[in-house]
Amino acid sequence: MITGHTQLFGIIANPVAQVRTPQVLNTIFDRRGLDAVLVPMQVDTEALPKAFEAFRGFNNMGGFIVTVPHKTAALNLCDEVSMAARDIGAVNTVRREASGRLVGDMFDGRGFVQGLIAEGRDPAGRRVLLVGAGGAAAAIGYALAEAGVRSLTIANRTRAKAEDLAARIDHFFPAVKVDSADANPQGYDLIINSTSLGMRAGDELPFPADLLEPGQLVAEIIMKPRRTQIMDIAMKRGCMVHEGSHMLTHQAELMVNYMLGQEYGVRL
Amino acid sequence: MITGHTQLFGIIANPVAQVRTPQVLNTIFDRRGLDAVLVPMQVDTEALPKAFEAFRGFNNMGGFIVTVPHKTAALNLCDEVSMAARDIGAVNTVRREASGRLVGDMFDGRGFVQGLIAEGRDPAGRRVLLVGAGGAAAAIGYALAEAGVRSLTIANRTRAKAEDLAARIDHFFPAVKVDSADANPQGYDLIINSTSLGMRAGDELPFPADLLEPGQLVAEIIMKPRRTQIMDIAMKRGCMVHEGSHMLTHQAELMVNYMLGQEYGVRL
Repeated sequence: MITGHTQLFGIIANPVAQVRTPQVLNTIFDRRGLDAVLVPMQVDTEALPKAFEAFRGFNNMGGFIVTVPHKTAALNLCDEVSMAARDIGAVNTVRREASGRLVGDMFDGRGFVQGLIAEGRDPAGRRVLLVGAGGAAAAIGYALAEAGVRSLTIANRTRAKAEDLAARIDHFFPAVKVDSADANPQGYDLIINSTSLGMRAGDELPFPADLLEPGQLVAEIIMKPRRTQIMDIAMKRGCMVHEGSHMLTHQAELMVNYMLGQEYGVRL
Repeated sequence: MITGHTQLFGIIANPVAQVRTPQVLNTIFDRRGLDAVLVPMQVDTEALPKAFEAFRGFNNMGGFIVTVPHKTAALNLCDEVSMAARDIGAVNTVRREASGRLVGDMFDGRGFVQGLIAEGRDPAGRRVLLVGAGGAAAAIGYALAEAGVRSLTIANRTRAKAEDLAARIDHFFPAVKVDSADANPQGYDLIINSTSLGMRAGDELPFPADLLEPGQLVAEIIMKPRRTQIMDIAMKRGCMVHEGSHMLTHQAELMVNYMLGQEYGVRL
């Protein structure tokens, strides 16, 4: 029951009808016994800075989620963001502090890592090949380094982008070996497809799947289709596979913790 | 269940914890089978213009209720307001049109009139004495004239304020006889206390209750206490009485209709 006491949260997107964040986060609020509600806010690009400006004066607001197409713009509208979020170039969760300050961070990558851990596939200590060097790859790369992988190798069609991302992550996490290479899966424990290849029938493969070795773990971030072509091939070759949906499912708890000002580290 | 499809409504107030609008309006949404939710927004005075500015770009927002202390300021933040709202000097309900335009109106007085009608006490054709000439009196006075009372007499301790309000209402509703007089209840069908006298024990009476006549209707807008001293005296003298709570209860349906762009006249 929503009353005048209920704390307000939002999901900002455009369009917003397709988001599942209200169902997922309101279920978490219920389960935790919180008097809080998250509502959809379809905010156009022009209104985004105005929304941030207004929310500083919304004293019963706890925070909000930001998604397509606003994740990049949100970065510069916060009063403070994590160094990783600044380097990734995107924010997807904003906490509103009691003073009105808006503090942002990025949980896409941490959600992915949390999903691995929840499925018993903790990436700590593993040798990881991350295929792709776009926004999703950046978020996942930082989160993997934060989670303590043994090595992180980034492969991308445009090699310079892979080198650049590897150098940036390496700068933040000197204890992790970060480099770039071709998309050859041989010798890795975990291979992650962070490209959009596999969403559409007829897409080329993101990496040469005939080189996969039994016992390797192949992870997707694509949610539709649930089983991509690379997952099919991986299973036939004796690999384990990890669905894209885990990333979203496990991100939600982290986002809630962050907005409530609670501990939100990868290992909850 | 709130989803990405749910239409967003708000109640803007400061503080907001005490408002009952979320319970009342969400119950109406449910009863009408609407996929809509109203949430509390505790907005401080400085943020109010920013909230209006932002909401123009909130494409899934249907509208919002405005209450203390923002009803006066809201008037000048709308893109359009009714002539009555402008003259009353306050807005308490804002509809967001598909273009983003914010259109405001005032329903306090209409809620009062609707409450009378719902209780079988239609003021149309009645001779009315309205005691008080403040914001509440103005809203009620316009709504009574709109509802087609036979005459409306305004009584106020500062007589000039009563004369001014009477002249303004008379200008809008030339068919209704509107004037000012002393707070003498003799000869009226309906006497309304729109002052705050009666909220506190020991308040003086808003008008000389010993002049009330059997069969007259005495109406309050005070909600706490539910039975004011003037109501007690009126009942002892054989008058009918009308509680302050009816005003709020019956205003809610009008507000919902208005925000949805439906007919919201006094006679639904």
